[in-house]
Amino acid sequence: MSGNVSSTVPLDVPPDQRKAFQERYDRMTGGKGRLMLFAGDQKMEHLNDDFHGEGIDPEDGDPEHLFRIASKGRIGAFATQFGLIARYAADHPDVPCVVKLNSKTHLVKTLQAEPLSRQWLAVDEVAALRDENDLDIVGVGYTVYLGSEHEAIMLTEAAQIVHRAHRLGMTAILWMYPRGRAVPNEKDPHLVAGAAGAGACLGADFVKLNCPDGSDISRFKEVVRAAGRSKVLCSGGSRMDERSFLERLHRQMEAGAGGSATGRNIHQKPLEQAARFCDAIYAVTVDRAPVHEAMRLYWGDPGA
Amino acid sequence: MSGNVSSTVPLDVPPDQRKAFQERYDRMTGGKGRLMLFAGDQKMEHLNDDFHGEGIDPEDGDPEHLFRIASKGRIGAFATQFGLIARYAADHPDVPCVVKLNSKTHLVKTLQAEPLSRQWLAVDEVAALRDENDLDIVGVGYTVYLGSEHEAIMLTEAAQIVHRAHRLGMTAILWMYPRGRAVPNEKDPHLVAGAAGAGACLGADFVKLNCPDGSDISRFKEVVRAAGRSKVLCSGGSRMDERSFLERLHRQMEAGAGGSATGRNIHQKPLEQAARFCDAIYAVTVDRAPVHEAMRLYWGDPGA
Amino acid sequence: MSGNVSSTVPLDVPPDQRKAFQERYDRMTGGKGRLMLFAGDQKMEHLNDDFHGEGIDPEDGDPEHLFRIASKGRIGAFATQFGLIARYAADHPDVPCVVKLNSKTHLVKTLQAEPLSRQWLAVDEVAALRDENDLDIVGVGYTVYLGSEHEAIMLTEAAQIVHRAHRLGMTAILWMYPRGRAVPNEKDPHLVAGAAGAGACLGADFVKLNCPDGSDISRFKEVVRAAGRSKVLCSGGSRMDERSFLERLHRQMEAGAGGSATGRNIHQKPLEQAARFCDAIYAVTVDRAPVHEAMRLYWGDPGA
Amino acid sequence: MSGNVSSTVPLDVPPDQRKAFQERYDRMTGGKGRLMLFAGDQKMEHLNDDFHGEGIDPEDGDPEHLFRIASKGRIGAFATQFGLIARYAADHPDVPCVVKLNSKTHLVKTLQAEPLSRQWLAVDEVAALRDENDLDIVGVGYTVYLGSEHEAIMLTEAAQIVHRAHRLGMTAILWMYPRGRAVPNEKDPHLVAGAAGAGACLGADFVKLNCPDGSDISRFKEVVRAAGRSKVLCSGGSRMDERSFLERLHRQMEAGAGGSATGRNIHQKPLEQAARFCDAIYAVTVDRAPVHEAMRLYWGDPGA
Amino acid sequence: MSGNVSSTVPLDVPPDQRKAFQERYDRMTGGKGRLMLFAGDQKMEHLNDDFHGEGIDPEDGDPEHLFRIASKGRIGAFATQFGLIARYAADHPDVPCVVKLNSKTHLVKTLQAEPLSRQWLAVDEVAALRDENDLDIVGVGYTVYLGSEHEAIMLTEAAQIVHRAHRLGMTAILWMYPRGRAVPNEKDPHLVAGAAGAGACLGADFVKLNCPDGSDISRFKEVVRAAGRSKVLCSGGSRMDERSFLERLHRQMEAGAGGSATGRNIHQKPLEQAARFCDAIYAVTVDRAPVHEAMRLYWGDPGA
Repeated sequence: MSGNVSSTVPLDVPPDQRKAFQERYDRMTGGKGRLMLFAGDQKMEHLNDDFHGEGIDPEDGDPEHLFRIASKGRIGAFATQFGLIARYAADHPDVPCVVKLNSKTHLVKTLQAEPLSRQWLAVDEVAALRDENDLDIVGVGYTVYLGSEHEAIMLTEAAQIVHRAHRLGMTAILWMYPRGRAVPNEKDPHLVAGAAGAGACLGADFVKLNCPDGSDISRFKEVVRAAGRSKVLCSGGSRMDERSFLERLHRQMEAGAGGSATGRNIHQKPLEQAARFCDAIYAVTVDRAPVHEAMRLYWGDPGA
Repeated sequence: MSGNVSSTVPLDVPPDQRKAFQERYDRMTGGKGRLMLFAGDQKMEHLNDDFHGEGIDPEDGDPEHLFRIASKGRIGAFATQFGLIARYAADHPDVPCVVKLNSKTHLVKTLQAEPLSRQWLAVDEVAALRDENDLDIVGVGYTVYLGSEHEAIMLTEAAQIVHRAHRLGMTAILWMYPRGRAVPNEKDPHLVAGAAGAGACLGADFVKLNCPDGSDISRFKEVVRAAGRSKVLCSGGSRMDERSFLERLHRQMEAGAGGSATGRNIHQKPLEQAARFCDAIYAVTVDRAPVHEAMRLYWGDPGA
Repeated sequence: MSGNVSSTVPLDVPPDQRKAFQERYDRMTGGKGRLMLFAGDQKMEHLNDDFHGEGIDPEDGDPEHLFRIASKGRIGAFATQFGLIARYAADHPDVPCVVKLNSKTHLVKTLQAEPLSRQWLAVDEVAALRDENDLDIVGVGYTVYLGSEHEAIMLTEAAQIVHRAHRLGMTAILWMYPRGRAVPNEKDPHLVAGAAGAGACLGADFVKLNCPDGSDISRFKEVVRAAGRSKVLCSGGSRMDERSFLERLHRQMEAGAGGSATGRNIHQKPLEQAARFCDAIYAVTVDRAPVHEAMRLYWGDPGA
Repeated sequence: MSGNVSSTVPLDVPPDQRKAFQERYDRMTGGKGRLMLFAGDQKMEHLNDDFHGEGIDPEDGDPEHLFRIASKGRIGAFATQFGLIARYAADHPDVPCVVKLNSKTHLVKTLQAEPLSRQWLAVDEVAALRDENDLDIVGVGYTVYLGSEHEAIMLTEAAQIVHRAHRLGMTAILWMYPRGRAVPNEKDPHLVAGAAGAGACLGADFVKLNCPDGSDISRFKEVVRAAGRSKVLCSGGSRMDERSFLERLHRQMEAGAGGSATGRNIHQKPLEQAARFCDAIYAVTVDRAPVHEAMRLYWGDPGA
Repeated sequence: MSGNVSSTVPLDVPPDQRKAFQERYDRMTGGKGRLMLFAGDQKMEHLNDDFHGEGIDPEDGDPEHLFRIASKGRIGAFATQFGLIARYAADHPDVPCVVKLNSKTHLVKTLQAEPLSRQWLAVDEVAALRDENDLDIVGVGYTVYLGSEHEAIMLTEAAQIVHRAHRLGMTAILWMYPRGRAVPNEKDPHLVAGAAGAGACLGADFVKLNCPDGSDISRFKEVVRAAGRSKVLCSGGSRMDERSFLERLHRQMEAGAGGSATGRNIHQKPLEQAARFCDAIYAVTVDRAPVHEAMRLYWGDPGA
């Protein structure tokens, strides 16, 4: 096997699925190994908090808003729950999807009970949806709460999901989040580096992390190194202004990030604006464009 | 696939079941996409409290009362447990049924332990009952207590039940109820909107909710929007006078509700009266009739 | 399907098992729809407390005593654990048996931990024992502790056991017992009525209950009505004098009970006396004999 | 089926396994229905406490010591874990074995947590080991902690293991031990009688109990009667002098015990002495020899 | 079966896998029955603590560092998680691997909750990875926390993993670690001996232990004896100077250890140095070389 293939296609992808895996991987990373993920699993994770209220465009209240953005903007993949994909993908067949296989609400806080989020459906059911409808489902996603007293359950489900995704020619993205009474600081870079390495041990192709912002390069480099060949996706987090967002992302990409994962910062905008912000994020993430170019895309002035 | 079909038939319904799914969906919604659900799972959920006592007709003490009403009144579907359907449906073969797949008693209160209700039987067993006896089982139902510490168990069972129902050509209704120590106000409209969106993520065709009464349209619209293409069924709740009941329902339907789910307000009445109240609710829910017309149906004066 | 059959044979009994089911049902109810159940699961439920001590015949210490009584007396069916049936039924092949599928000891009290009793063996294993040895196993039994914090586990097992018994042509008896911290009064008639209805929802053919004694007919009628077509079996409970026992049972049968379930009041007697008491109970339960006739049977003076 | 067979071979042994079951039963009981069990599961149950220290022969530190004794001494069967049998039985192919299917360490005391010991491997895997290597595996063993809050788990596993052993032509021995916060006196004879009956309900061929010492015959007879056709094996317990040991055993056998189960009192001795003590125990247990004869065997003076 | 084979190949290895098992066993033990294990599962067990920081070579931050060492140094086998092997083994195809099947983070301390680490993937999935890619996967590994309140879960998984590994022709290594509230001193030699014997009961080919350092020979001999034919691997533990490390190991090997398991003491060094330290450890472990010779290897002066 050539070195190039080996670093992308893990060995648990069976030989007859390696070409399909590589093609999906290339499609979602623009052939450049960097992933712009539009993360849209918050209707379960945050209930309606991210979709209704001050500063949120009314269009965002409708689940289809997510698909419209994913269809119109430039993205690597759109991550959301199976139920929404089954409901809306027929009208948005061009969207590359990642099926987020577990989700929980934010109702029970960590102070009340240790976090636990469990697998909803089998990877095989995802593959069947994909093949039966000729959908562009490129991967699956799963959240692990490292440091939760229920960690053992999620580690097992994660390992099995990653492996089964590979068997079926799909990529696997792990949301690696330290959380629980045992975790005083979820964003400590050394701990995030540990989460990155843990994701690698689990076989993830991509690990979504609360990345250090890249202004302290050395701390972020620890994270990227720990992930090894698993690519680090920097979570977008809560709402912030667009230029600052892109500048932070640019620093993260410069420092070795393998991609970005953005939710609220995209979908709380009206459709056109949201789609153009996808274009901008994609440019920084995949094309490694400078921020001023990306901002022109966001302003709808690509030809400048 | 035509846009019309796609918005009704989710993609996880296999091609050879799509026609059957659409027919069941149309039958239960009167071809109008609105569902009048006669909810009759309270013999487990509330034990005998809803069926015996002051202001409850003695006929209601017999489980068959529910089937007699469902048979005589105009309904979209009647939801109850598998055991009752297996026992009574042979004598009431015309009743369109939804098999409620989980139920718990109300004995253990939330203050004592976090709510948990688990799946009793497989969807495949429902389909076998349906096919073997040529019953008109149009769907399955399941309750999720969002915000319970046992939420993860119910989210997984719900997602699998919805998916398996779709595989077998049936619709899925989720009772989405925020409940537990983490939920101070179960009927907060913003939280109910979150529950609606959560039901959509789980792939539900219908989500049964404690709807805002529609007098504050904006708060209810948040709920309806959050559900997207999953239809919102407004729970009837505790006993109230018929006109007020229908007026509230009318406001809810005007505000975008996808249907109604009524139990005690129907079955605590004697048979004839109960059946006529079904007619009235059906008229408001499915035919979008004005309340005064519906009240005439309830009075047994349809020709007026 | 004729109305007569439909009310006895639930629809989840497959067509090719309906005749066998009906025959078993008729055999255990003497063709009259009323069941005299000899309940003999106490060696696990009460350990040796019911079988050794003051006022208990020494013969009762031997497990075979139960089979000898079941063989010699007139009974509808004898309920006990699989292990005992496998060990003794070869020598008592005429005994109609109900395999009690769960049991717990009484060592852990409700104050210490919420009650939980789980399924031991599959219904299919019962059917195999039945068919391989040509035994007269007419049904299976299972206890549900409603109101226990572990209620969800037992509701699911109960629903599945009832259904699987039906698939294999056998009846299902549920011991429906409210118990746990949430249940201050296990014998409250309204609660017992709830338990009866819950048993009906689970699909039970018979529900074994702590029945009101029938002296207050209205309270007992609530129970019987709530059970619907599921027959109510009145538990015999702790030891009492024979005439009082039969009088109470007679009142219960008059008030609509579907049968009786008696353990200690039978097996703590020496064999001959125990067998004659079976005859007496059977007479009141199935033949609806008056108490004085039944007492003559007990005295061994049937011809009087 | 003849009465003789029926009392030994339970009906869940399939017809084509009954001869094999009977032969194994006869072999392990010397054709006399009484079992001398050499119990050697303590390396897990007591870790190294029974195998190293004051008064323990150094040979006992090596796991093979157990097999050497079992091979050299006269025993009915040797009970130990699967892993040891797989490792040593090839060199001791003549040893009749019982695979102990669950075990726990004694590290967590009852005061800290309720006792729980779970099944390690399937009975089918035992049968495969037996058949593939032509080993003389005559049965399986399992411990139930009655009165533990985890009792339900162990009752289910026990019932399934007994049944599956019977399906595969092997005997089943249950270690029935009341233990947990709910059990103030584990050796109360009435409670032990309850444990005996519980073992019978679970279908055990033999129940290993903390037997009363037989000096109070009436209390021990309650135990033996409660077990019925399941044979009572008296646990040897902690180290004591040989004559006292044999005298107690003799009383127990006289009082109706079905056998003995001895561990430390055998294996803490050097090989020759241990083997001769097996001979002595076997003589008392199976041959019903008087103690003075057995002591001669122990002294190596059988011809006397 | 010859004595030689029987002591190495357990009987649950099926006949058609015995040759493959023996070859793997010989390859990983250099044909001498002693194993030098390079333990590399710490990216999950200790997150990034062992891979970044003071005194740790920067190369160690990259997961591939482990594979480079394993490829360049002389080792018996390299133990790490499935995900890393699937990602890196294509570029390091010569490395003999042991797939560590469970792992947990160190975030939740014993004081907060009892330790639990669960199986991630099936042994069959390991065998498929091995065969599909012609990898040199010689065994699997699993950690048991004896004395944890969750001990029962891990004992069962361990027994099943060992057995399944044997079925598929692979060796099994158990990390036997007493841990939990019930364990005041995890390194007490008598307790470690108990852990060794427990590993033998579970069928392990090798048990990895916190060995006494061998300076008190008698205490270590208890450990080695208790393990019987299961080989004792002495854990390397935290960082120490090379000569002291090798001297301790030499004493342990002299005292009967079956091998060594070293992690941090190898991989925190730069590649060349790490590889040479592997050579040194291998020499002491497998070749039984004296420490001064091993140190020459470490200094890169093998010809001396």
